Amino acid sequence: MGRHSDNWIMTAQCPSRLGTVDVVTRFLKENACYITEQHSFDDRLSGRFFIRTEFRPEAEGFEAASFETGFAERAAEFGMTFELTPPDRRMPVVIMVSKADHCLNDLLYRYRIGQLPIDIRAIVSNHPDLANLAEWHGIPYHHFPITPDTKPEQEAQVWQVVEETGAELVILARYMQVLSSDLCEKLSGRAINIHHSLLPGFKGARPYHQAYEKGVKLVGATAHYINDDLDEGPIITQGVEPVSHADYPEDLVAKGRDVECLTLAHAVALHVERRVFLHARRTVVFDR
Amino acid sequence: MGRHSDNWIMTAQCPSRLGTVDVVTRFLKENACYITEQHSFDDRLSGRFFIRTEFRPEAEGFEAASFETGFAERAAEFGMTFELTPPDRRMPVVIMVSKADHCLNDLLYRYRIGQLPIDIRAIVSNHPDLANLAEWHGIPYHHFPITPDTKPEQEAQVWQVVEETGAELVILARYMQVLSSDLCEKLSGRAINIHHSLLPGFKGARPYHQAYEKGVKLVGATAHYINDDLDEGPIITQGVEPVSHADYPEDLVAKGRDVECLTLAHAVALHVERRVFLHARRTVVFDR
Amino acid sequence: MGRHSDNWIMTAQCPSRLGTVDVVTRFLKENACYITEQHSFDDRLSGRFFIRTEFRPEAEGFEAASFETGFAERAAEFGMTFELTPPDRRMPVVIMVSKADHCLNDLLYRYRIGQLPIDIRAIVSNHPDLANLAEWHGIPYHHFPITPDTKPEQEAQVWQVVEETGAELVILARYMQVLSSDLCEKLSGRAINIHHSLLPGFKGARPYHQAYEKGVKLVGATAHYINDDLDEGPIITQGVEPVSHADYPEDLVAKGRDVECLTLAHAVALHVERRVFLHARRTVVFDR
Amino acid sequence: MGRHSDNWIMTAQCPSRLGTVDVVTRFLKENACYITEQHSFDDRLSGRFFIRTEFRPEAEGFEAASFETGFAERAAEFGMTFELTPPDRRMPVVIMVSKADHCLNDLLYRYRIGQLPIDIRAIVSNHPDLANLAEWHGIPYHHFPITPDTKPEQEAQVWQVVEETGAELVILARYMQVLSSDLCEKLSGRAINIHHSLLPGFKGARPYHQAYEKGVKLVGATAHYINDDLDEGPIITQGVEPVSHADYPEDLVAKGRDVECLTLAHAVALHVERRVFLHARRTVVFDR
Repeated sequence: MGRHSDNWIMTAQCPSRLGTVDVVTRFLKENACYITEQHSFDDRLSGRFFIRTEFRPEAEGFEAASFETGFAERAAEFGMTFELTPPDRRMPVVIMVSKADHCLNDLLYRYRIGQLPIDIRAIVSNHPDLANLAEWHGIPYHHFPITPDTKPEQEAQVWQVVEETGAELVILARYMQVLSSDLCEKLSGRAINIHHSLLPGFKGARPYHQAYEKGVKLVGATAHYINDDLDEGPIITQGVEPVSHADYPEDLVAKGRDVECLTLAHAVALHVERRVFLHARRTVVFDR
Repeated sequence: MGRHSDNWIMTAQCPSRLGTVDVVTRFLKENACYITEQHSFDDRLSGRFFIRTEFRPEAEGFEAASFETGFAERAAEFGMTFELTPPDRRMPVVIMVSKADHCLNDLLYRYRIGQLPIDIRAIVSNHPDLANLAEWHGIPYHHFPITPDTKPEQEAQVWQVVEETGAELVILARYMQVLSSDLCEKLSGRAINIHHSLLPGFKGARPYHQAYEKGVKLVGATAHYINDDLDEGPIITQGVEPVSHADYPEDLVAKGRDVECLTLAHAVALHVERRVFLHARRTVVFDR
Repeated sequence: MGRHSDNWIMTAQCPSRLGTVDVVTRFLKENACYITEQHSFDDRLSGRFFIRTEFRPEAEGFEAASFETGFAERAAEFGMTFELTPPDRRMPVVIMVSKADHCLNDLLYRYRIGQLPIDIRAIVSNHPDLANLAEWHGIPYHHFPITPDTKPEQEAQVWQVVEETGAELVILARYMQVLSSDLCEKLSGRAINIHHSLLPGFKGARPYHQAYEKGVKLVGATAHYINDDLDEGPIITQGVEPVSHADYPEDLVAKGRDVECLTLAHAVALHVERRVFLHARRTVVFDR
Repeated sequence: MGRHSDNWIMTAQCPSRLGTVDVVTRFLKENACYITEQHSFDDRLSGRFFIRTEFRPEAEGFEAASFETGFAERAAEFGMTFELTPPDRRMPVVIMVSKADHCLNDLLYRYRIGQLPIDIRAIVSNHPDLANLAEWHGIPYHHFPITPDTKPEQEAQVWQVVEETGAELVILARYMQVLSSDLCEKLSGRAINIHHSLLPGFKGARPYHQAYEKGVKLVGATAHYINDDLDEGPIITQGVEPVSHADYPEDLVAKGRDVECLTLAHAVALHVERRVFLHARRTVVFDR
């Protein structure tokens, strides 16, 4: 995942209607763009169309701006929204954490070796604990403590960092505070959380302890976009791990770390590669 | 799973206390029984001890009855309950079904080739649909229709079959009726149900439709002992299957069939090989 | 897998060149065909393009013949080969078996409940053992014994059945004879074999015994198109199953049955849904 | 995995014979040791017995030395070798690397948070590249360059580090040099290598490129004890990852990193928790 690519990516969605694919592919042909990979899906229940295209211009002098202007005219006819992403673009990202560092450590490693096309602009935490880790990777670390009373101010600080860094994605890498509805709204469709259970099972606090009590034989993790219904945001991907009676709650916590890391990293890769489409409460994911 | 074995199996459980393993292994040694596989576990939270031993008598003239009498004396001191299972014993079983036949078909195949050490004495259904399948395998099929009014009578018929066949295990292979508390109690610890979701997610009816609505990326199945709290019985094993946005509810139903079959067959094999211990609301499973 | 569909399917491949997608999608648009799902891939190493499109005609009076004639003209320019499959078409199939019946039983079950869009026209075996199973499902069973001396004659009989039934796919469901180069050639691209190992590990006979000797911790199965290099045909899909030291060779055989059934059924579903493209020694698979 | 434990661990093996379990459990009982978990296995093909016991002394004043002396007398009669491990013991370890750092980074993280009960005494490499990573974790880093001519000298340096640090385990975390037969022999049973393929498939160099050529649909990794038959040492554990036609060799390399990390970490945890028994060319693994 998170692969390097020499290709441009175009993603689009609109209501289902004859010609939705053609309007994309014809324009690409006219602009001498060779399609290297394409995936489209029509959701017959919601009547919505989704398409993701990777392509490379074959003629010299490809201009994103004029391409976008040109396509916008045709897209308008279909009520189609679209996005164009240049090759090797690194998406600006802010990561939020609390005290647990396994997901952060994992993301930083992938970032460091160039496996994830992201540009981590800042790490924000309500605790000072992980400042060292950020420092070693040369990333600004903002410690914004939070109490019930200061929550609005703290969230304003968070939002300021997001704005000032130009972050297009916020990754909640085991950030243990519930975001306000207001912040959820502002971050809608561009904040990914990792919940340490196979949602919708075991919502809320201490899911591994809940899982132990219930005696499940599988634990897992769910990466999802946040919305203001806690633990109910649209799911991007889920991972799973077998467990046994011999796993006490602390063992489930330990076993869960790996699956949390992998599931979150997978979801981030899917998002930054523009493979995830959000529509209403569900996602369309064009995984490789 | 479900393997043939030349070995005797002894299983036991009791409160935790010094000497629980020794009382078993010393007795086996004294009776010239060679232990080929042994697994014990002490649950430190509930203070309960579980042991499963496979062994073969090395001297001639091993007598189960006198072995049991002899061991009962020693076990008593520990408040230990135990069970002795001879080699190649086939557990008498009754299977309950409704209209869906995938789990039944799967169990009958494993039974036919000798992969599951069970003896299917009867198939009971509230519908006539699967009589042919039973007939081809030469197994008596009882059609006991049910309505809200006749439920007590129908369950009495079911119970009569269980009693008359000497069934030690009842397998609910997609039987779509809720058993009464009374029947649940009678079958406590010896009736296995397959629920078509990763419990505790998606309890109740039409779990695949619930899963579609929620947009999950994994579906699964849960095999559990029944108790009078519907879909809440102690879990034996769980299976899982990745799904995508392109899977409509009917696709989830189709994909779920395989994982339901495998999960139920696995749970049955674990049970009949005496690998499952039930204590309170959880199980201890000594899988290979 | 193996889902019912109201859609037409068009698949095509050709050398990579600007306009390969456009030539398909524009023609569909011109013929008022709505694309419900599309997947294309350009293999940059071999310079080859592959596309699979599901669509439904929106105008009345869609005619396959004239559609094909019309598209053939445009395809010719790209050196593109293509295939058109109508909705709900059931591919005519011949299954070859020897004595082991687990894969056959599994395929017959999926066939019986309509999960696989195939039409099983005949079952061919070099042994009489599985005639009963065929009979119960109402499928002609041909027992063609084979010896080293009679191999050419036996293969002629097999070929005659393939020809007379109009079979487009031959499934080797644990058929334990090596096909001659001549028959392999005739069946090129339309005969799927299940090998009971994770090829290229453990080629040849008794792979589970080889796996036991080696002490592997995973066994698996490989579904592949046959070619005249035994156990080396292009791979369609592979499945895997964890094993342990406690699994003797006979246990590996038993555990392997499930993964063989699932892997073969998956490969057959992919093939009949036109999701597999064969090019040189590798496949392109557009799985859901 | 890698869990903290308050328990002592005793492991033993010997030829199969009546009384092998009893000699262990009786001695524990006599010394007032409570067995919290026990697993024994008799390999009927090799006629060899293996046992692993976790226990806690219930009386004060448990003395390891006198326990060992006492048990050695009884063990002698069975030709039994055994090992006693105190609670919370951290096994001294040396890690060998080349340039790839994913496995090292993963092990260091688990070490740092205390998830693996190891004590990393030194990191040895034939390249200088990973010195920074070692430094940040405060671990001595030895850069021992190697050429065909200097191999004996370099291995002597490596061996000196192993000796001086008292390392009981050497982890080859993507060390890309073949060890000499001599060093293999010295490290027999206490050096774990991670090979980036599902051995026995794709031995030797560039296994992901081999896998791409072959068109496999699964890649994986194998953690094994080294021996002087390269890539043929006894397997401890294996991991697997699905791949597709869209994964080029460089994608397989990237996807493989995760499964290599997890597989190696799992093998190390199994080894240091004394869950792996080595006998001839195979292992017995008592996983949780």
